[in-house]
This record gives sequence, C-alpha cells and structure tokens, in this order.
Amino acid sequence: MCELYSKRDTLGLRKKHIGPSCKVFFASDPIKIVRAQRQYMFDENGEQYLDCINNVAHVGHCHPGVVKAALKQMELLNTNSRFLHDNIVEYAKRLSATLPEKLSVCYFTNSGYVHGAGGVFIADEVQVGFGRVGKHFWSFQMYGEDFVPDIVTMGKPMGNGHPVACVVTTKEIAEAFSSSGMEYFNTYGGNPVSCAVGLAVLDIIENEDLQGNAKRVGNYLTELLKKQKAKHTLIGDIRGIGLFIGIDLVKDHLKRTPATAEAQHIIYKMKEKRVLLSADGPHRNVLKIKPPMCFTEEDAKFMVDQLDRILTVLEEAMGTKTESVTSENTPCKTKMLKEAHIELLRDSTTDSKENPSRKRNGMCTDTHSLLSKRLKT
Amino acid sequence: MCELYSKRDTLGLRKKHIGPSCKVFFASDPIKIVRAQRQYMFDENGEQYLDCINNVAHVGHCHPGVVKAALKQMELLNTNSRFLHDNIVEYAKRLSATLPEKLSVCYFTNSGYVHGAGGVFIADEVQVGFGRVGKHFWSFQMYGEDFVPDIVTMGKPMGNGHPVACVVTTKEIAEAFSSSGMEYFNTYGGNPVSCAVGLAVLDIIENEDLQGNAKRVGNYLTELLKKQKAKHTLIGDIRGIGLFIGIDLVKDHLKRTPATAEAQHIIYKMKEKRVLLSADGPHRNVLKIKPPMCFTEEDAKFMVDQLDRILTVLEEAMGTKTESVTSENTPCKTKMLKEAHIELLRDSTTDSKENPSRKRNGMCTDTHSLLSKRLKT
Repeated sequence: MCELYSKRDTLGLRKKHIGPSCKVFFASDPIKIVRAQRQYMFDENGEQYLDCINNVAHVGHCHPGVVKAALKQMELLNTNSRFLHDNIVEYAKRLSATLPEKLSVCYFTNSGYVHGAGGVFIADEVQVGFGRVGKHFWSFQMYGEDFVPDIVTMGKPMGNGHPVACVVTTKEIAEAFSSSGMEYFNTYGGNPVSCAVGLAVLDIIENEDLQGNAKRVGNYLTELLKKQKAKHTLIGDIRGIGLFIGIDLVKDHLKRTPATAEAQHIIYKMKEKRVLLSADGPHRNVLKIKPPMCFTEEDAKFMVDQLDRILTVLEEAMGTKTESVTSENTPCKTKMLKEAHIELLRDSTTDSKENPSRKRNGMCTDTHSLLSKRLKT
Repeated sequence: MCELYSKRDTLGLRKKHIGPSCKVFFASDPIKIVRAQRQYMFDENGEQYLDCINNVAHVGHCHPGVVKAALKQMELLNTNSRFLHDNIVEYAKRLSATLPEKLSVCYFTNSGYVHGAGGVFIADEVQVGFGRVGKHFWSFQMYGEDFVPDIVTMGKPMGNGHPVACVVTTKEIAEAFSSSGMEYFNTYGGNPVSCAVGLAVLDIIENEDLQGNAKRVGNYLTELLKKQKAKHTLIGDIRGIGLFIGIDLVKDHLKRTPATAEAQHIIYKMKEKRVLLSADGPHRNVLKIKPPMCFTEEDAKFMVDQLDRILTVLEEAMGTKTESVTSENTPCKTKMLKEAHIELLRDSTTDSKENPSRKRNGMCTDTHSLLSKRLKT
C-alpha cells in the first residue's frame, strides 16, 4: 500500500495542521486506515478490521456501484442546481416515493441544520434511515402508518459518504419556508454527482436486499447479545433495532451506574481484536453498533465472540461475576486483576475527551429523540 | 445525449419535488445542461454555452485530472477524518504552504459558516482565492505582505465543485476554538476523496499555470471591456481583477442610477448568444464574470463581441447614445425601440426574484467586503 508518510509522521502533521477539534478515534493509539471494502477497513500494514461503526458507508465501503455512478457523472457534469438536470428531480422523485405521500418536496444540502418551529414534527433519519432499522425503510414508520412527520432529515449515509444531505417536507411547509424568505439551502447540495451517487445507493439497497439483511443480521446479533447479557453482569441492557444496536454497560444493575471506564477499556481491547466499536451516550457507557448494511451473521458472531472474551477477562479483573465463572474467583488472581483494573482506568483517562460529538451520536431509539426539534446532519 | 426526461418534464418534476427556494438561472426560460467540459456547457440539444459564471469549476468542468484523482481515492477509501490518513495532512500542509507562515491550522468542512469575533480579521477567499485574482494566489495578498489575516476561508472552487470547504487559522486561534469547546467542524470535510480532489486542483493550477492565465486573460478582458465602457453609456464602471470582473451598468453616469432591468435583459440576450452571465450586486445591475480559470483570450473576445452587439441594440432602443452612433438616432427608429424597451421591462419583472443569493455573491473587491466578519461558503 502506497503511503506518503509513516504513521508517526502522519500523526505529527495532523497535530501541526489539523484543528484540534477534529479528534481521532482511539486517541491514545489512533489507527491509520488506507483502504476499505464492504464492512472491512485495512490499516497501513494490511491488518483487517471489522467495521461496526461506519454507518455512513451505508451500502459498504467503496461499493463499486457507487464508484461507477460517481465516475460516470463526474466525467459528464458536476454543477450547481440552478440549471435544470434530470438527476436532482429523479432522486427527489425516488426519495419521496419511499415516504408518505404528503412528504414530496426535497431540499438538498451538503450538510445541514434544520431549525424546527413549534408544533412541527421532525423525524431524524440521518442515522436510522434507508433500511437500517430492518423492518421499515424509515425508522419513523415504527410508529405506524398514522404517524406522518412534517419534516424528514437525511444525512451522509444516503451518499455512502459522498457529502449530501436532504430535508423532505410537505408542499405547505415548503411554501411557508419560501414566503418567509428563508434561503438556506445550498445550490450544490443537489448537484448531479451527489444525486447520481444517491440514486446508486437506493438501487443497491434494493438489489442487495440490504434492508432485509439489516433485519436478519440485526435480529441474529440482538439474540447473541441477549445471551451475553445473561452471562455478563456488566451488560445492563441491549437496545436498538436492525443494525443500530446499543450495549448499555453498567456497574450495578439496580442503580444502573454507567460503566464509562469499562466501555473505554472494551473498545480499545476490541480494537486489538480487530473490531472497531465506539462508546457513546451521555455517559459514554453504551457500545454502539451501526456497521455498513452488508454486515453478515459471521461478522456478528465474530464481534460477539471477541466481546465475550474481553468481558470475561474484565469481569474477572473487576471481581464481578460472570454466570459461567461464578465460583472461580481465587485469591491468587486478585492482584493481577487489580493491576488490570488500574490499567483500564488509565486508558479511559487518556481518552476521556475523545468523542466530541457524543451528543449527536447518542442512541435515539425513543420517540423523543427521533423527533428532536433541532437536528444537525 | 441520454436524457431521462424531456426538458418540460424535468421542469415539472422540479416544481413538484424541489423546494422553491432552490431557484433556477434564467427563471423565465431555464437551461437544461447535460454535460460540460473546460469553460463550456452543453444543453440537451448539444448547444454549446460559454460559461462565464461557474467559478466553482475552478480548473474547468470535468477536468480529467480531478476525475482521475477522485476515482482513484473512491476505489480505495472514503471515510471520516477520525482515522489517520495521509490525504488530509498532505492537503493541509500544501494549503498552509501557500499562506503566510502563521496560518497553519486547517479545519475542513463540506460547507460552512464562520462567525468572526471582534477584532479578528477574516479573509474570504471563497470566490477570489486559488489564483483567480491573477497576480496573487490569495486576494488578501493584494494588500501587501504586512497584511496577514487571522482566518482565511475557502470554498467549493478548491474542490472544483466536489463539496469541500476549509478555514485556515493560526495555532493560537485554533487553541482558543478548542478550549472554548467549539466543536463545529465536520469529520467528513477532510475525507480522503475531498482531499485527493483538492490536491489535484492545486496540482492543475500549477501545472497549467492557471494563475498566470487568470492574470493574462483577465487583463486582456479588462482592456476590452474598458473600450466598451468608452463606447457604451450603459457601462458605468469596469471593476475587478484577474478573472473576477464586474461590469457596473448605470442609467446615468452622474447619479449612477442602477440599470437593473437592462442588466436582466442583457443576461437573457447573452444567453441567446450562448454566453452565460449573471447579474449581481445589491441592485443586481452588475454583470459578474467569474469563469473557470481556463478561460481564453478567444473566449474573452467572443463574450465582449456579443455584449457589444447587445448593448448597441439596447442603447438604440432606449434612445441613449453609443459613441459610434451619437448622431444616428432618427425619429423613424423611435417606435421600434420603445417596444423593445417594454419587452425588456417585462423580462425583468418575470425574473425579479431569480437570484436569492445576491447578498453573498456581491462583488467584493474592496477591503471591507474581503474582510467581512461573517462568511458563508
């Protein structure tokens, strides 16, 4: 693999030239990724990582269908949407066809904010749309056919990482926007290349039955994780749906004390096992799983097996009991385990400022956050 | 050329599915563009238009060097900047090498706002950077070496239309940003594909001497336009530098009454002559020329010839005098000319809401607007 710089030099240049608010994953031992395919990422030494975090690579990293569509359009035309072009209208038509009838007007952006007004229901589909929840194409559909939001927001997964975002609303709201003089939306958001990529993503979701896959693999993964919950006291809850799952880690099942340091320890240990996971939630104690939609049952099994091993060692170290090792704590193990726990706490301190976007990335499987009135894509 | 929809159907679908705040150029008779190369755009019938407005296609529409760089990177990896990657650091290094030494820290976004604080000098290079002003790579350099802004903002031309934007600042300001907890910047802004494209744009500017071209062709075009100013009373002033030129149209040289309706008439007539121009400024009476940087002297000559003809006919119609026709107004011409003027006013009324972004697109050749404290890319 052709590298311009050694990992050390890349890190040095990054410290010098990239704003410090742009944090790296695994701050105390960052990864350099040089290529990716489907649900796998590869570092500069060719090591393969199972990607459980990049929901933005919705149909899989570097999907050839996406690359082909982008290339074809980039060779022809990439310009703003002040000229008429088929791609923007075709993409808007296709998107609105997936939504309740009244949601027919699209605003494309490269990345955007929506400020909701009082009484307006906004469904945030940035992380949970496009089939990720499995049973439905849009997560708001979980609330039944009678529930129709006024505004639906979509983000980067719709472009598989190509910068594009969209807000879909009703004709009435669009007219109100327009007459209020709101001129927020970006003329490059619906450019022919972004729309070609977006159309390819829709085709791939359908052709590869990725929504069905999210349901099947998501169910399988949830079952595996529920078995882990029965085995490991650190697991307080398994939440989520489809391929959007959170593992809530707690120190105490009754008090539900967040196991924040333990979550940090686990994501670093999982990285050593070549599985990329992140910790999220207000207390950063929730392991969040939102992989590319081509994630398989084998991937799920592999991920859970690694997690099982790490939890077993960790719980032993902490002196808590796993179901299978209830009576195995012996005095001679205690010293080693205490040291492990100190190491764990050191890890978590180093990394305590790693994830600046924890607010937006919080799990949002309840109605309240799905309908958040202020959204950022 | 393969079209999905007829122009009429494209327009109909657009009215149905695209938010009305996303206006089209030439609203009363929009153009459908299906492909573009260098400084030329082509409609669905293969008609070629000289593009004098798309500064975003900085190195030329669909430049093969840009397409190649994007394709190569899209096949390898496109992910967020939470992993280490060479492209983001290389691009940041290359960008900061073009700037005064203290401007060394980059924040990449897909498109962004910067809110300046009191006493902070922000140079907006979104429209005028990357060699467009000809003599300098950055427009703020026109004010001499002693003038060093605190923040420089860059926009879409840096990606030749691929959505990418950047804010470069000093280490001190970056640290202040960081410690204030500002977490604005987007982890996808510096993705490997955007940075690969940005690097290709820098290479092309250098390899094809586009900055030198902007200077040469810009000077030539300015000279041609100054001759037109001497000939046509409608031209109040020629402003600008390099390939960023404004033709200020006025009804009266002393009062400097903006010739808004005339400007609208001219851009529609220029479109008929297959030249794409826009009218801008607070009164929308400034014809703005900001073509791809590969614009040639032949293009400049062609554009000015068409403008000359249109101005001649228009001024005759208005009863004003062009230098060459000072004594040629005869009574018999008057009626025909009045009718032409009525047609002109009708055109302008239909199109009076065409350009919603007139504030941001205002010519900014004076220090005040170059250093605007609130910028939008």
